[in-house]
Amino acid sequence: MQMASKSDPIVDADTLPCDYAHFGEDTPLKLDSGMELAPFTLAYQTYGTLNADKSNAIIVCHALTGDQFCAGVHPITGKPGWWEMLIGPGKSVDTDKYFIICANVIGGCMGSTGPTTINKATGKPYGHSLPVITIADMVRAQVMLLDHLEIPDLFCVMGGSMGGMQVLDWAAKYTDRVFSALPIATATKHSAQNIAFHEVGRQAVLADPNWHGGDYGEHQTSPHKGLAVARMAAHITYLSEAALHRKFGRNLQDREAVTFGFDADFQVESYLRYQGSTFVDRFDANSYLYLTRAMDYFDLAADFDGQTVNAFANTKTRFCIVSFTSDWLFPTSENRQIVRALNGAAADVSFVEIETDKGHDSFLLDVPELFETVTGFLNSAARQRGLTSWAP
Amino acid sequence: MQMASKSDPIVDADTLPCDYAHFGEDTPLKLDSGMELAPFTLAYQTYGTLNADKSNAIIVCHALTGDQFCAGVHPITGKPGWWEMLIGPGKSVDTDKYFIICANVIGGCMGSTGPTTINKATGKPYGHSLPVITIADMVRAQVMLLDHLEIPDLFCVMGGSMGGMQVLDWAAKYTDRVFSALPIATATKHSAQNIAFHEVGRQAVLADPNWHGGDYGEHQTSPHKGLAVARMAAHITYLSEAALHRKFGRNLQDREAVTFGFDADFQVESYLRYQGSTFVDRFDANSYLYLTRAMDYFDLAADFDGQTVNAFANTKTRFCIVSFTSDWLFPTSENRQIVRALNGAAADVSFVEIETDKGHDSFLLDVPELFETVTGFLNSAARQRGLTSWAP
Repeated sequence: MQMASKSDPIVDADTLPCDYAHFGEDTPLKLDSGMELAPFTLAYQTYGTLNADKSNAIIVCHALTGDQFCAGVHPITGKPGWWEMLIGPGKSVDTDKYFIICANVIGGCMGSTGPTTINKATGKPYGHSLPVITIADMVRAQVMLLDHLEIPDLFCVMGGSMGGMQVLDWAAKYTDRVFSALPIATATKHSAQNIAFHEVGRQAVLADPNWHGGDYGEHQTSPHKGLAVARMAAHITYLSEAALHRKFGRNLQDREAVTFGFDADFQVESYLRYQGSTFVDRFDANSYLYLTRAMDYFDLAADFDGQTVNAFANTKTRFCIVSFTSDWLFPTSENRQIVRALNGAAADVSFVEIETDKGHDSFLLDVPELFETVTGFLNSAARQRGLTSWAP
Repeated sequence: MQMASKSDPIVDADTLPCDYAHFGEDTPLKLDSGMELAPFTLAYQTYGTLNADKSNAIIVCHALTGDQFCAGVHPITGKPGWWEMLIGPGKSVDTDKYFIICANVIGGCMGSTGPTTINKATGKPYGHSLPVITIADMVRAQVMLLDHLEIPDLFCVMGGSMGGMQVLDWAAKYTDRVFSALPIATATKHSAQNIAFHEVGRQAVLADPNWHGGDYGEHQTSPHKGLAVARMAAHITYLSEAALHRKFGRNLQDREAVTFGFDADFQVESYLRYQGSTFVDRFDANSYLYLTRAMDYFDLAADFDGQTVNAFANTKTRFCIVSFTSDWLFPTSENRQIVRALNGAAADVSFVEIETDKGHDSFLLDVPELFETVTGFLNSAARQRGLTSWAP
């Protein structure tokens, strides 16, 4: 299905095998900052087929370093899409039943307008001059995409971590267009500790002289070292102490004894360095600044008189909230606050805390209880929506 | 009391108001790496008075970024010594009763031989050419200091975190010279997660072009930015999620609303930046590399056939192990492993887990239950040692 052309992405990403929705000067994206972004582009990928009454569409929202290639094989990395285990024919998010839309977020670096995009006013990449983007801005762009696709409403919005934040914003502000919502491993606001870790990552990028005030593209360089350090720090927070112990412990890397030096003696060091070095090949440093900032700024209650419960007043959306026992970035207690707000609004909500030692990254990993939970929730919602025939 | 002269420290630190013990070419420090360090110096500070039978000496071992100025006012920073709340006249570690010795560790940057020390063979600072130092090396140097001071044995060895590692090494390898031992918030080995966080810090330093392969002194510069990032990341691990939430939450820094930019909008960002920027004024980047490496390498069992219990076989030392409920760097479970090993060796051990939300840093903070625990343990040990008269 191609409802928008693949031609002329603003960024040098036109070789990406995905769809693009271009919005011109006359349809700017109105940002929370008060600024407007125009023109702008959303790069998105779809899976499955929209049915005749357009009632089977799901928007999948990606996390900080994800992108629109959530299923199948990623065309750039050659690796499975980030939710390939969850999305596909016969899988929990069954592409034989549903029409899945996944867009690269505004501020990202996989074809949607972001810091690497050429600013038509200057002829140079936006870099650090791009207005600050919020979670609500990302969702607002997705709403415009939905209108562009002429789909009135969504069967479901789902996503984990930063994706879960988008799900909450969708459900709170576009409640009539969201039949069901599945926020995973997320929170109604970013915690002090999470802001702190993001700030460390940003400072690592800013400390790299190759950042050049954000204009590294003009200098034909990139703050790779700083971004790798940022990724290493963040990556620790995506795992759990138990998982690190189980996977690595104090095992040495290809050696019998410590070397009394600063090489990667320990496997965990080697692993982290690899995570850092491969990340910089696929992610833009300025995007990392913008998207971490968007997460830090997220505070759903702020738009609802400081009361999260107000965000869900009179909602008819069915919710399923999922947390993981070993997730210390978005612990169960934070996910439970979403449940509490929904209960306060007398919403239709179920809550599943999944026992695993895999940490925050559990939402991306092979966790069968997650797959079963998603399958069950979507099946139930499909029955409620009367999606009994899957014929397009 | 001055049992060694204050003259001629090897480093440019002779203005420090503390004592120095110099060890010449004929008395090298034998390192775990197989290398020898000679000459070398220990800069140390003492508090209180050694009694006539030399039975009231306590060695206090400092943590990663501590130094010999554990009590009173720090002569460089003008702030209280790092354990000023615990050590002093009438305090838990009563300087009217005990003679306290605290030495800057080998590899440090407060007067003891470390990366900033001039290597007499080259006429330049050791920098990154200093041999790698281990916790056992630090303790071996302290044993030489004790001999230099002609003190046969210690009433107590105490310390938290990296200091606690030194306490464990003292008690395991010099058991006849340690009457009592008080390791706090520590572990018998550094965990995978802790190694990972240290590696992030080291990579932040190494990524700074001002590091110059460790020879930044020659270039009259310093990897301040990288070290500040390292400190910021580490500092988060010293606190707890609850403490960060209580102290900062999502409070804004001197502003009414977010600025839609990358300034320190949030108090927690401002606080972290301050921690980073002040740290670089008082700490050497190479020392940071060496001391984090020493902690990573620490694995007490490795010297005892892989069995921690063997480290304490036939020990007569009295132990008190202290952990803090919110410490996620050295959680209670890791401290309990020390207790388990001591129990296995039928040692005299008490264990106290202190309820606090202040995280790993609790051992440095105003935690009355810690003060009471230390007071009680030392009083009991003093009675057992027959320290009934406190006259010198």
